[in-house]
Amino acid sequence: MYSLQDCQTIINKKLEELQLPVAPGNLYEPIRYILELEAKRIRPALVLMGCNVYSEDIQPAVFPALAIEVFHNFTLMHDDIMDQSAMRRNSPTVHAKWNPNIAILSGDAMLIKAYELLSATPAKYLRGILPVFNQTALQVCEGQQYDMDFEHSYSVSIEEYIRMVEFKTAVLVAASLKIGALVGGAGETESACLYAFGRNLGIAFQLQDDLLDVYSDPSVFGKVSGNDIVSNKKTILLVEALDRARGNKRRELYHWLGMSEFNREEKIAAIRSIYQDLELEKSANARISCYHDLALANLNTLTIAPDRKRELLAFSSYLMNRKK
Amino acid sequence: MYSLQDCQTIINKKLEELQLPVAPGNLYEPIRYILELEAKRIRPALVLMGCNVYSEDIQPAVFPALAIEVFHNFTLMHDDIMDQSAMRRNSPTVHAKWNPNIAILSGDAMLIKAYELLSATPAKYLRGILPVFNQTALQVCEGQQYDMDFEHSYSVSIEEYIRMVEFKTAVLVAASLKIGALVGGAGETESACLYAFGRNLGIAFQLQDDLLDVYSDPSVFGKVSGNDIVSNKKTILLVEALDRARGNKRRELYHWLGMSEFNREEKIAAIRSIYQDLELEKSANARISCYHDLALANLNTLTIAPDRKRELLAFSSYLMNRKK
Repeated sequence: MYSLQDCQTIINKKLEELQLPVAPGNLYEPIRYILELEAKRIRPALVLMGCNVYSEDIQPAVFPALAIEVFHNFTLMHDDIMDQSAMRRNSPTVHAKWNPNIAILSGDAMLIKAYELLSATPAKYLRGILPVFNQTALQVCEGQQYDMDFEHSYSVSIEEYIRMVEFKTAVLVAASLKIGALVGGAGETESACLYAFGRNLGIAFQLQDDLLDVYSDPSVFGKVSGNDIVSNKKTILLVEALDRARGNKRRELYHWLGMSEFNREEKIAAIRSIYQDLELEKSANARISCYHDLALANLNTLTIAPDRKRELLAFSSYLMNRKK
Repeated sequence: MYSLQDCQTIINKKLEELQLPVAPGNLYEPIRYILELEAKRIRPALVLMGCNVYSEDIQPAVFPALAIEVFHNFTLMHDDIMDQSAMRRNSPTVHAKWNPNIAILSGDAMLIKAYELLSATPAKYLRGILPVFNQTALQVCEGQQYDMDFEHSYSVSIEEYIRMVEFKTAVLVAASLKIGALVGGAGETESACLYAFGRNLGIAFQLQDDLLDVYSDPSVFGKVSGNDIVSNKKTILLVEALDRARGNKRRELYHWLGMSEFNREEKIAAIRSIYQDLELEKSANARISCYHDLALANLNTLTIAPDRKRELLAFSSYLMNRKK
């Protein structure tokens, strides 16, 4: 069977071989640029791994895998405009390096390119995977919209936050596995089960990301920690703090959220201390374990022979033990 | 056979029936808004008409027709951000009414929605029309990129300008007819011929649009004329003027193009006078006739019975005689 690393290597090679037109340069150069940034290629690797659970031949899964990766990078290119992010993977974002118009249009072309790659899937599978891709792509947009809506709100419930995470992050992980499974020949029940595994794992992954911003070692995590705190980004920690904090603690929280000028380290320390008093790290870790357990239960439900699940099991352990 | 008007009525009815989710409102409300603006529905009508040339049953063409219209409106939503246009069809544009981020994300969702509608095409046709749609959609992006690149250039050749018009406008008209024909059961040669008809007619249409900005009666055209002149927009007239003007006339042209503050009516009158001296209206009309004749020749080449071409012939006359 193919390991995560095998699949990542295949995807990187296929991405290098991807033919894009030269002209107009302002349309295609940013696409080459974002696809060449170092990335983990988790989602397309999961398409191949989902296929590999049911078939030794993962070749038919290559085009849908590339489609998923190009789609994911399209969302990054457009999200970075909307979030006004200047850096991505240690490099300038496309709208910062070129300009927002070029990032809008190149992103549009990437979304079309994703569908072009998807259309190259063998005909007998295409009909089954198109609706999965379409629905997922719309949900990812919905997730980004909820995320933007939440920026202006202090009253996001934990359920709303989890749904946002589900749509913005988890459904694409889930769809990657499902599309792979369908191309590998899995039936409706099996592929739905893999979808649920990916969905639960994707939620756990994002919640863990929220935690890593606050509690990771920056030299390992690769980003300066506390960025989410500084920018008042809604995370599971902040959403839960807003839900739980009472009295003075609540006033202190609102005080820091409302300040436009502040000392960065001071704000991080103050908010961290509120999180600590409310025991939010523990609570978030409990949620992560819960979604991870659900994911493992989904994997257990699969009727395929246990040894076919080996690589997905290894993947879920890798994801849960990451430090960055 | 169905006339243009019959097809427009069908499309408007189907668009009204289109189900879009309610939440998140900031994602779906702008889509409803732009689709409800009064519009001619030319492209989706052409999908139905292309189908109707070969088949009495135009039902299988309805979904691809809606896909084309939703795609077209996605391009308008994003182009309006890039061009910083505040008004479209006498109403505020989406980015002006909401904000640019919402217009980016709603546009993305529309592009996905277009593919979702396309995916609902009967299976036996989908395989044939997906590559046409994908290629066309990418070309439309390329056309928009060329158009933006041209903003900063005084040395656009007529060939480059026509290619931009071909990509930005004509290929979608062409693809509408071809997709319709394919769904109606036309073979490769026939549908390629209809594509060529649409391509040539589309170029003629856009060149005519360039003329109407300068020479139409504003009370009929619906927009104040001379907007393209005021904004230095590259049109067939300006591109040809930059190519032909010599000596004092060239200096005068550059003088007006370089001014950041000017009297609107004075600039329009001055540029119009340069166009008149260079006989550019005549030259542009000759080009329009040329593309129109090419389109009619394409229609002649179709092997289908002459009476099946009746409505397309009527459509091309309508298009060439329009005053707005």
